[in-house]
Amino acid sequence: MTEERKISMAVIRRLPRYYRYLGELLEKGVDKISSRELSEKMNVTASQIRQDLNNFGGFGQQGYGYNVEYLHSEIAKILGLDQNYKMIIVGVGNLGQALANYGSFEKRGFHLVGLFDVNPRLIGMSIRGIEVKDIDQMEQFVKENKIDIAILTVPKTRVKDIAENLASWGIKGLWNFSPVDLFLPSEVQIENVHLSHSLMTLAYKINEGDNL
Amino acid sequence: MTEERKISMAVIRRLPRYYRYLGELLEKGVDKISSRELSEKMNVTASQIRQDLNNFGGFGQQGYGYNVEYLHSEIAKILGLDQNYKMIIVGVGNLGQALANYGSFEKRGFHLVGLFDVNPRLIGMSIRGIEVKDIDQMEQFVKENKIDIAILTVPKTRVKDIAENLASWGIKGLWNFSPVDLFLPSEVQIENVHLSHSLMTLAYKINEGDNL
Repeated sequence: MTEERKISMAVIRRLPRYYRYLGELLEKGVDKISSRELSEKMNVTASQIRQDLNNFGGFGQQGYGYNVEYLHSEIAKILGLDQNYKMIIVGVGNLGQALANYGSFEKRGFHLVGLFDVNPRLIGMSIRGIEVKDIDQMEQFVKENKIDIAILTVPKTRVKDIAENLASWGIKGLWNFSPVDLFLPSEVQIENVHLSHSLMTLAYKINEGDNL
Repeated sequence: MTEERKISMAVIRRLPRYYRYLGELLEKGVDKISSRELSEKMNVTASQIRQDLNNFGGFGQQGYGYNVEYLHSEIAKILGLDQNYKMIIVGVGNLGQALANYGSFEKRGFHLVGLFDVNPRLIGMSIRGIEVKDIDQMEQFVKENKIDIAILTVPKTRVKDIAENLASWGIKGLWNFSPVDLFLPSEVQIENVHLSHSLMTLAYKINEGDNL
C-alpha cells in the first residue's frame, strides 16, 4: 500500500469490529445497510463509520448505503484475511490449550499446525488432532513448515529468549500473551494481549463510573 | 474525581503499563528514575511520559525524576488497585479454567471467589480450592457475597442473557471474553477482550510490515 497514506492504528483496530458486524449481517442475508443503520447496531456515530471507511476509499454509495458482502470482503483484504497463516502455540498450559481449542480462528484463515511445550506430561498429548511436541523440535518445525505466527503462552521468564529464537528462524508475527514487552527486529510484528492491563482498566472504569 | 477534568481512555489504557514497569523497578530496589530513563526502558518518548503523568498532577520533580514507590502507588490509586474486588468466573471451559489459575490477579486485589457453569461434568470440580457451582445458584451467590466483577467466558449465544441478569443483581463490572458487544445500563462497566480482533490486527501488521 505504498501509494496510500498511512492509516492510524486506532482506525485499524476498529476494522475487526466492522468485519464482525458485517459477517453477522451476511449470515442473516442482509444485502445492504446505510451508515445510519450500521451506526445504530454498533453504537458508534454514522460519521465515525464514514470517516473510518473513507480511509480506504469509502465503499458507500450516496442514497444506497453499503453493499454488505463487498464491504465485508474489502475489509477482509485490508486486514489480510484473504490469506492463510500457519500458526503454532508455544506453551500448552491452560491458556495455550484454550486457544488451541478455538475453532473459530480457522474460519478466518489462521491454521493451527503445531503445539510446543517443555513439560514431559504435556508432550505427546493431542489437541484437535495436533500433537504437543518438545520445544527442542521447534526450530526445525518452524523452518520446514514456514510458520507465519507463533502464539506465546509461556511464563514471562522464558518469553524473551523464545521470541528472539523465533525471530531468527523467520517467523512473521508473534501473538504474545506474556506480561512482557518484546523488542525485536522490525521484520517481526508483535501483537500483545496483556490481560492484567485489561482487568486494571476495568477497575478504573468501576471506580470512575458515571464520570466516564 | 468531579473536580478534575476528564482524562481520555487512551491515557488510562497506558497506565497499567507504567504500573507494571514501576513494579519491576521496585522489585529491583530502584528508588528513583528520570523520565528519560523510563522512556528508554518502555520504548516511548519522555515527552509522552511527562504528558501522560501530568494528567494526574505530574508526580515528577525537576532535576530529580520520579520517586518510583510513590508513582507506583499513585497510579495504583488512580486505577483503583488500592481496593479489593470480589470476582466470579461464569463459564469454566478452557479459557475460564486458564483465568481461574492466574494467581497474579490476587496480588492486585482481584479475588476470585466463585466459579459457575451449566455443565454437570464441571460442577463439583475444584480449581485452586474454589468449587464450580451450578449457574442456578449464581443469583443468590452474587447478591449475598456482593460480587464486584464477573468474568464472562461463556458461548456467545448465552452471554447477553447472563450479562443482563448479572446487571440486575448489582454487579459493578463485566470482563467479557465473548465476541459480542454488550449494551447494559451505565451503572455496569464493561471491558471486552476480543481475542479474534487482536489476531486480525496482527494479520494486518504482518501484511503492512515496514509501512507501519
